Amino acid sequence: MTQARTTRRTVRPEERRQDILEAALTLFAERGYRGASLATIAEKAGLTQQGLLHYFPSKERLLTEVLRLRDERDMAATGTADTTLDALARIVELNQERRGMVQSYTVLSADSVTEGHPARDFFTERYERLRLELAKVVRAELGDSPRAGMTPETAATLLIAVMDGLQLQWLLSDETVDMAGAFRGMLELLRTHPSG
Amino acid sequence: MTQARTTRRTVRPEERRQDILEAALTLFAERGYRGASLATIAEKAGLTQQGLLHYFPSKERLLTEVLRLRDERDMAATGTADTTLDALARIVELNQERRGMVQSYTVLSADSVTEGHPARDFFTERYERLRLELAKVVRAELGDSPRAGMTPETAATLLIAVMDGLQLQWLLSDETVDMAGAFRGMLELLRTHPSG
Repeated sequence: MTQARTTRRTVRPEERRQDILEAALTLFAERGYRGASLATIAEKAGLTQQGLLHYFPSKERLLTEVLRLRDERDMAATGTADTTLDALARIVELNQERRGMVQSYTVLSADSVTEGHPARDFFTERYERLRLELAKVVRAELGDSPRAGMTPETAATLLIAVMDGLQLQWLLSDETVDMAGAFRGMLELLRTHPSG
Repeated sequence: MTQARTTRRTVRPEERRQDILEAALTLFAERGYRGASLATIAEKAGLTQQGLLHYFPSKERLLTEVLRLRDERDMAATGTADTTLDALARIVELNQERRGMVQSYTVLSADSVTEGHPARDFFTERYERLRLELAKVVRAELGDSPRAGMTPETAATLLIAVMDGLQLQWLLSDETVDMAGAFRGMLELLRTHPSG
């Protein structure tokens, strides 16, 4: 890679990096991790496979960075570092405007349970952390027993499950399933008559 | 394919067919649809790729049959043609004993949202049908408004979402997430103080 490239417009490294991540996000969503080749991602980003490898030394590394990018955007979307149940509802609402992000997440997270998948640890740790964080949020907002007999930990597990499961139905229904409405319904179920 | 095969034990066609379906179910779960080649599936089932194609003329066809097999087993598992909320809870409990089935479902359903996937229609129709069926069950057991302001249709969408989402967390947690317990908790949320 030198500055002597004349056939393409000159872009700054950071911009180029971003182009590659966007291309990878799109192609992983469309074809899955194994189905999207580095050559296709490079082509979509407007550079050669060799050029891509200059920015991301391996496909595994590119995947990790794509997943990190997704998380950053989620955090930016809530507009605050503090998670609340209402902030979760806002994320679900926002997700209805960004199919690519939703699809990449659904495809890659399920993909990650297959044998030897490079994102397996990423998702395992992500869900463990999410359950802990959300249990704290539930405890803070709804008390130790949000509903008779249900722990904040179980409530957190259910909230995450609902978010993931709704995404799959939304994707498969041509976006006609009302994810945001159903998720608000779920919050109502947890909030009605809290005993804590 | 003739009866003159001498290097392998003779098995009846129906048995052979079953072996192929089992091999495909396992390999789709382990590697995803695109990652599992016909050659590998044939090898695992103990026959040649040409032999496999005698039973299933294409990979798409094999996938369809695998999905049908899964559904049949689910129906058999509930032990009745009538779906009830308790029957769903039994399926979730049973699923904790059959990782392969759960994994194949999670991997293939998410896979199916990728571009040009041959099981897309299967899953789209399956979820539409499931939502309708479950809405009827909810209406019959909990009334027209299982919780203030929530329709049976939304409750059905949430129940399906929870089942799917729990499977992903269960698979990624080395099966430590208590799917059956969390699902029973979800049923409790819907059943407490029904207003219908």
